[in-house]
Amino acid sequence: MRRVCVVVTARPSYSRIKTVLDAVNAHPELELQLVVAASALLDRYGSVVEQIEADGFTIDTYVYMVLEGESPIIMAKTTGIGIMELSTAFHNLRPDVVVTVADRYETMATAVAAAYSNIPLAHIQGGEVTGSIDEKVRHAVTKLADLHFVATDVAGRRVLRMGEADDRVFVTGCPSIDIAAQMTETQQLSFDPFTRYGGVGDLLDLGHGYIVVMQHPVTTEHHHARLHVEQTLDAVSQTRLPALWFWPNVDAGSDGTSNGLRAFREQNPSAPIHFFKNMAPLDFLELLACSNAIVGNSSVAIREGSFLGVPAVNVGSRQRNRERAENVIDVDYDAAAIADAIRGQLDHGHYTTSTLYGDGKACVRIADHLASAALTFDKQLAY
Amino acid sequence: MRRVCVVVTARPSYSRIKTVLDAVNAHPELELQLVVAASALLDRYGSVVEQIEADGFTIDTYVYMVLEGESPIIMAKTTGIGIMELSTAFHNLRPDVVVTVADRYETMATAVAAAYSNIPLAHIQGGEVTGSIDEKVRHAVTKLADLHFVATDVAGRRVLRMGEADDRVFVTGCPSIDIAAQMTETQQLSFDPFTRYGGVGDLLDLGHGYIVVMQHPVTTEHHHARLHVEQTLDAVSQTRLPALWFWPNVDAGSDGTSNGLRAFREQNPSAPIHFFKNMAPLDFLELLACSNAIVGNSSVAIREGSFLGVPAVNVGSRQRNRERAENVIDVDYDAAAIADAIRGQLDHGHYTTSTLYGDGKACVRIADHLASAALTFDKQLAY
Amino acid sequence: MRRVCVVVTARPSYSRIKTVLDAVNAHPELELQLVVAASALLDRYGSVVEQIEADGFTIDTYVYMVLEGESPIIMAKTTGIGIMELSTAFHNLRPDVVVTVADRYETMATAVAAAYSNIPLAHIQGGEVTGSIDEKVRHAVTKLADLHFVATDVAGRRVLRMGEADDRVFVTGCPSIDIAAQMTETQQLSFDPFTRYGGVGDLLDLGHGYIVVMQHPVTTEHHHARLHVEQTLDAVSQTRLPALWFWPNVDAGSDGTSNGLRAFREQNPSAPIHFFKNMAPLDFLELLACSNAIVGNSSVAIREGSFLGVPAVNVGSRQRNRERAENVIDVDYDAAAIADAIRGQLDHGHYTTSTLYGDGKACVRIADHLASAALTFDKQLAY
Amino acid sequence: MRRVCVVVTARPSYSRIKTVLDAVNAHPELELQLVVAASALLDRYGSVVEQIEADGFTIDTYVYMVLEGESPIIMAKTTGIGIMELSTAFHNLRPDVVVTVADRYETMATAVAAAYSNIPLAHIQGGEVTGSIDEKVRHAVTKLADLHFVATDVAGRRVLRMGEADDRVFVTGCPSIDIAAQMTETQQLSFDPFTRYGGVGDLLDLGHGYIVVMQHPVTTEHHHARLHVEQTLDAVSQTRLPALWFWPNVDAGSDGTSNGLRAFREQNPSAPIHFFKNMAPLDFLELLACSNAIVGNSSVAIREGSFLGVPAVNVGSRQRNRERAENVIDVDYDAAAIADAIRGQLDHGHYTTSTLYGDGKACVRIADHLASAALTFDKQLAY
Repeated sequence: MRRVCVVVTARPSYSRIKTVLDAVNAHPELELQLVVAASALLDRYGSVVEQIEADGFTIDTYVYMVLEGESPIIMAKTTGIGIMELSTAFHNLRPDVVVTVADRYETMATAVAAAYSNIPLAHIQGGEVTGSIDEKVRHAVTKLADLHFVATDVAGRRVLRMGEADDRVFVTGCPSIDIAAQMTETQQLSFDPFTRYGGVGDLLDLGHGYIVVMQHPVTTEHHHARLHVEQTLDAVSQTRLPALWFWPNVDAGSDGTSNGLRAFREQNPSAPIHFFKNMAPLDFLELLACSNAIVGNSSVAIREGSFLGVPAVNVGSRQRNRERAENVIDVDYDAAAIADAIRGQLDHGHYTTSTLYGDGKACVRIADHLASAALTFDKQLAY
Repeated sequence: MRRVCVVVTARPSYSRIKTVLDAVNAHPELELQLVVAASALLDRYGSVVEQIEADGFTIDTYVYMVLEGESPIIMAKTTGIGIMELSTAFHNLRPDVVVTVADRYETMATAVAAAYSNIPLAHIQGGEVTGSIDEKVRHAVTKLADLHFVATDVAGRRVLRMGEADDRVFVTGCPSIDIAAQMTETQQLSFDPFTRYGGVGDLLDLGHGYIVVMQHPVTTEHHHARLHVEQTLDAVSQTRLPALWFWPNVDAGSDGTSNGLRAFREQNPSAPIHFFKNMAPLDFLELLACSNAIVGNSSVAIREGSFLGVPAVNVGSRQRNRERAENVIDVDYDAAAIADAIRGQLDHGHYTTSTLYGDGKACVRIADHLASAALTFDKQLAY
Repeated sequence: MRRVCVVVTARPSYSRIKTVLDAVNAHPELELQLVVAASALLDRYGSVVEQIEADGFTIDTYVYMVLEGESPIIMAKTTGIGIMELSTAFHNLRPDVVVTVADRYETMATAVAAAYSNIPLAHIQGGEVTGSIDEKVRHAVTKLADLHFVATDVAGRRVLRMGEADDRVFVTGCPSIDIAAQMTETQQLSFDPFTRYGGVGDLLDLGHGYIVVMQHPVTTEHHHARLHVEQTLDAVSQTRLPALWFWPNVDAGSDGTSNGLRAFREQNPSAPIHFFKNMAPLDFLELLACSNAIVGNSSVAIREGSFLGVPAVNVGSRQRNRERAENVIDVDYDAAAIADAIRGQLDHGHYTTSTLYGDGKACVRIADHLASAALTFDKQLAY
Repeated sequence: MRRVCVVVTARPSYSRIKTVLDAVNAHPELELQLVVAASALLDRYGSVVEQIEADGFTIDTYVYMVLEGESPIIMAKTTGIGIMELSTAFHNLRPDVVVTVADRYETMATAVAAAYSNIPLAHIQGGEVTGSIDEKVRHAVTKLADLHFVATDVAGRRVLRMGEADDRVFVTGCPSIDIAAQMTETQQLSFDPFTRYGGVGDLLDLGHGYIVVMQHPVTTEHHHARLHVEQTLDAVSQTRLPALWFWPNVDAGSDGTSNGLRAFREQNPSAPIHFFKNMAPLDFLELLACSNAIVGNSSVAIREGSFLGVPAVNVGSRQRNRERAENVIDVDYDAAAIADAIRGQLDHGHYTTSTLYGDGKACVRIADHLASAALTFDKQLAY
């Protein structure tokens, strides 16, 4: 039995890793160890603790590591605290392999703690290209990782070109697609989001369609977070459909985004926008699958959106250079351009499914590799 | 005036960066900010504070970050503490660019703190290949860095293949060669090392030659640190020349190495080995230049040794795959093999100068690039 | 010139220390060093940075130290981070004396950092009795402090009985009364709080009077934070006057309190309660002075309230055993009892001024003692 | 079963607490949880891990917290790191009560971590008076603690005067006396210390008597650590007996002391002084019991020395105002005065046993109180 320690650090990363947790749990040769850390523990960013437990998982360790404040120095210090705390967690759990996802500061902290603890590290979602600090962190984590489970062929080729060994890189597809693939060909929402999740704002009539909005602050542009969210607010207000808006992640700049949202609400109390903090992954994907469009800068529009065929308007630089299927239109931080693009997508309607980011079986492949791959922590550049 | 913040964290890294500090100080468009951190501050590893001040530099900030203990968890926690402390230092100094060297945990801490603080990062000695945790850290730092000053053509090609942009990678040669190049064609030691540096052990007659020994514990093999140093002690004892032995760096495993050295001393009080903790860079290089051979696993044997033509016996895995000139013979952790190799090198005598690691002008090139290169902190994979 | 370093860590402590900052600034032999730390920096608890700057002070250092989360472990870790960060701040500022206020975890962190840095420590508000973790911390800080500026005779006698030296304890009165004393005999609010501070909720008619509510979670009862705030919400809803409600401090339990407030708002959108996050100290005191009553568990009701003669309903255990003037009625966490007490106080109307907590000149006395007292950091129990 | 978590942080505190560990282990209603932290884990200060395990205890958690360096800032930062790490340890172990000893920074860290974690805290050795930073910390820990196990009647009265409740203060005697009391009326050493413990220096003839020396740096005088140790070295060199000298604790100043010792050794290689790093508690006490005198500033001379009747020369301020039996002569940091006092004590010979610090049954009383006392963490000043 190999002990596989997965570190869940935020609402979106839980959603993307959930099928892997299931597959590890189900695998006869693997034992799941679950560390829940960082904003995944915090109510104001939508704690996922209750969801995780409702999904049937046992949490082995809680790691508090998020320093409060809005300043880039906070991200550095949070990473430092995370390394101190996660190294203790790994020391106590003694995993055979640690699994981390994506490119956030918790990912960096997980990677450094595992590397210096001589614990093999598996990284999911390496080899992608976006820009901003996430870009640096993602590839640095690749260089600290021993096993790579990438979403696309292109991502896999990039990881190999960075000097990783041929037998350590696996194109598994992205586990976020697994859960999207569980959506049956839903035509209509099976639940009322306002009843189930509360949120803030009027109850809206979703009978004639709706759009979903998720816009995170961009770390390297955090001084403009408020300005950027205001452009999207303006554009979304112009559309003919009601909007379901999701609160941003914790990050430098998130207070700017939050303040922009609060100010808008106070000045436009009757705008047909309802705000949510969180939603169970399956519910969210159903909401997305049934929506007329998604707007903002979340990668969900590009990844899960491609499989679900949801028309997407991607705003600004956050997803720059991420591989796209044909469901995505890119626009700048400009209210008029955003509004135009939304109109175009609403006219177009849904797209056909793309398997660019996976075919829905990533989790099984990842669990199998975790069970069979050689677990080493000493490596060398392949060239 | 650009503020260039250099983080000095250990005896060897000061020695390698010293000519860059001089060149930055001398450059009309650059202002030097000097952070002294980690083991560079600690007496028992040879504090370099006094040397730095004697060399005419002003220290702007002291950063204490080394957690005591002998365990891999210590390296993780020290990195975490380092990030917390260095982010404050950078916040207060507001540098335009941070310069870091090589591949230690302080390098990692410097890189993470700078990256999350949105400060451009320059990395010296990227693109080299060695093995062990240093390997992971070196390349992860490359992915966090914005400017790369590499020692060799091969190293430069590796950094480019890892996806760094063409105009951000500069083959400057290694600044450690600059100082080696300042050695005139010394035939004889100009000072008495016992008088100037004290150390522990009998005063030895160096008139008929001597060998220099530096052997550091290997992080991923730290349980064997004592065994490994004992093989070298055995071999060195068999040679016909006296030995000048330098104490190891702080690292997981350094207590094993230290204990091996202490036990040997107590059991062999009359062996012709003298132990030093530290030496001024120029004095050390003169000592090396005049020596008959260098034994152990220090990179100085391979780098500065190649320029100086000093016969070198490299023991074990620590320098695996590092580019070598013809002055190096590699052997395993085996007393007999080490002793054989030493005999061979003593018979051969000095080699001709190699410019593999630089021609002695790296510091000027680095200062010029720091003054002229675009200073950015947002980048993307080149492919 | 003595360098006096004052650490401001939260909205209420700034309000209580502000006149001391002025008096230190004005004193010819003192130089003010201002460290702003912890929740004083955080928007969601009402950052006081802008107020501090608007009040004409220069902030020397910002110290981020609040770890996010709702758990007692968070308070411990925040204290630890605070010690690490504040010791650096003191090291850089080199103050002759550090001034800290009250009994929060930032106070503890300040005291430990100063004590181990061999910097004399002055403590304001020692010797008071309340209960809960604050009680332990307040007296522990007294034992770490070298100078004591206490509010009342009783507090002074307690500090002496704890073994502090006679010539180190000064009954200065509480600086919080200084600012209260600056309130002229205001009969009517000179500003519109809704216009100036926004906040959340309907604009209320304050022409016929209003009550002020401040209720903080009690650390040792943090699991009941939501239940407790609901009782007060219920009672306040029953009163005939509109309520101005202030958001709680960051603390274990504050999310329970916050959630209770949010849920109430959603279920009672038309209740005549308006929520504020923050207010300039003078504006707040004017609001308090003009109010018909104050309800909750803030010490402001007992301290400044006594001088201003404001009828106060003190709920629960947080202020247990604090010295009271006759303006305070104590009740349990019980909606009916709270409502009864409010009615009684509204019937009674304002009380005459009490100087129990000071006469309005504490700040001048404190500055004079800081300028003239021997500054030492080595002491011994007086018995 | 109550879970009693004891935090062992250094060689001397283990020695003083060992009988309590035995008594807790033996008590039918108590379960021992053992945390080994700080310098107790570090080889260079004499790791006690092997001793603890040889004594039959199971270590539940290791806590690395000592930051390296010689500066007061290090003590502050180490305390901060200790709070972060110990709060995690307590969170995982979920003790019913935490036990801490004495007045070091680890004691402070333990107390703060337990207090903010709402875990009842028992403190051993409160109420004593010494001076220096230890004095502040000892009494601050008293104010954070819920149960007090004091050594002497005078100490108990002091703790009560500081405002602790009558039923929370127990004069148990000091557990350090328990182990001293286990020494039979030894006339002669039952083991050869050189064979068993190695150490550094010549093998000495102890047949005609010997003296024991322990001198720690004083935190508030750390700049003078080297000067102070040199006076004692000078005096001890003048005596007619060989000396067994124990290496100092980790503390600001310990490098000064260490350097003084090293320099002396190199300049006086034939002085009849042998240096030890560590010794099993029973062996050390036997060594002390059989010695002709003890010199330095260790509390062991005053505490265990009083029970054993060992003539003691106490140097300098470190033990200022500690209660003494008649076996102690106090002198300043002055070689001549120290030498005089040693001569006087050697002429006098052994004293009769004093029970000032305990009768040898403290451990049983402490275990009984831990099993029966109400375990609370909320308290108030008794006046």
